[in-house]
Amino acid sequence: MSQDLTEPGGLTRLFVEQALTAGAELVLDEDQSHFLANVLRAKAGDAVRLFNGRDGEWRGTISALRKRAVLLQIEKQTTAQSGVPDLWLCLAPIKRTPLDYVTQKATELGVSRVQPVLTRRTIVERINLDRMRANAVEAAEQSGRLTVPEIAEPVSLDKMLRDWQSDRRLVFCDEAGDAPPAAQAMRASGRGPWAIVIGPEGGFTPEERAGLRQQPFVVPVSLGPRIMRADTAALAALALWQSTLGDWG
Amino acid sequence: MSQDLTEPGGLTRLFVEQALTAGAELVLDEDQSHFLANVLRAKAGDAVRLFNGRDGEWRGTISALRKRAVLLQIEKQTTAQSGVPDLWLCLAPIKRTPLDYVTQKATELGVSRVQPVLTRRTIVERINLDRMRANAVEAAEQSGRLTVPEIAEPVSLDKMLRDWQSDRRLVFCDEAGDAPPAAQAMRASGRGPWAIVIGPEGGFTPEERAGLRQQPFVVPVSLGPRIMRADTAALAALALWQSTLGDWG
Repeated sequence: MSQDLTEPGGLTRLFVEQALTAGAELVLDEDQSHFLANVLRAKAGDAVRLFNGRDGEWRGTISALRKRAVLLQIEKQTTAQSGVPDLWLCLAPIKRTPLDYVTQKATELGVSRVQPVLTRRTIVERINLDRMRANAVEAAEQSGRLTVPEIAEPVSLDKMLRDWQSDRRLVFCDEAGDAPPAAQAMRASGRGPWAIVIGPEGGFTPEERAGLRQQPFVVPVSLGPRIMRADTAALAALALWQSTLGDWG
Repeated sequence: MSQDLTEPGGLTRLFVEQALTAGAELVLDEDQSHFLANVLRAKAGDAVRLFNGRDGEWRGTISALRKRAVLLQIEKQTTAQSGVPDLWLCLAPIKRTPLDYVTQKATELGVSRVQPVLTRRTIVERINLDRMRANAVEAAEQSGRLTVPEIAEPVSLDKMLRDWQSDRRLVFCDEAGDAPPAAQAMRASGRGPWAIVIGPEGGFTPEERAGLRQQPFVVPVSLGPRIMRADTAALAALALWQSTLGDWG
């Protein structure tokens, strides 16, 4: 008997690269095929939800299970395409587990792009972009998003600031003191494209901090009296932004 | 030559149980002694920061290093005692790594108490309170807090609601729809003692949700259009509360 393939969060949701149109058939990649066939023990006729970042969400059913490939028949669109607010997270890479974690959480919190930034005190030099992207895809599948955040190539802080499009505000969580409370500073600067920059575990150097604060697009903010780890600060700033200027209103 | 014992965040900060008074001597426990003597390679005369949750922050110097115990001489108080806002996090336990993580993050975000809550769909039954407390102590040391959040004994959701002090508001992050945006709902309810309740990975049952919503002290809130994991929702709600009603203003 066919069924809806459910996980704890409801009907299983898969991100695919292919176009989604009524009646089309698509072949899932090996990992997704393995997940459906062997983990969820899917059968022909079982239903899933599909999205590709462009065509909204669709219902599909399994038309065939081959040795290494599950075939899906695309049925009908269930949700029209929609995006997330234009919010980037620019963060100095941190050791692997927190980076996985912050990528997942940033996806759940609705960022449009994650931009690794290399600073003077950045210790992690090798960044596995494929792994970050896999984390983003998985979190997008589970969060109900219709897009996956872009995972950008790493860039140095200097170059990022030099090439910055000046209409995009950049939140700088400045521990060193006199910045206004984050929600208040965000609200005062108003809507438009935004980004949040988070330094490495050792913080920005005094020169980097001065360089950030002299940019006209930088909005220095305070996140309260306690010292937070980089990943905590990132998640707190994202939540405050979504609540103040994003789609949580 | 004596020195200030520094870690990446600055002068090493230790939580101790003993009273802190000028001129007193204290003996660190075996773990802290090992950390100072063998990890940081401390020497007699080196300085650290100390707090115990009651007496503010003090500067101490190492008076002797014995085989399993480091002795400290308490010098002078450097910061007067202060607390955090009266904010509890009541959360259904989640698998170990996220629970460690959320305990650390909640400490950085300034909660006064973490209360494990058992719900119908709570899967993790054994909760290691000592481990949660160790995570809270470590995060308090690194965050500059002068208190460690209380880690309470687990309680069932039913009992927690039955025994609730009705002047404490309880934020309920209700995914099921019609709740107002979190920051707005918090602001409308005003200052005082608060708590945030977060359900297990599978969510509350319909009966639990109805039971929560009928309590006069419960404030249902929405955290936006995306589905978040329990730990993400906890951190987002804590950040919004600190920004709206806590000490980030």
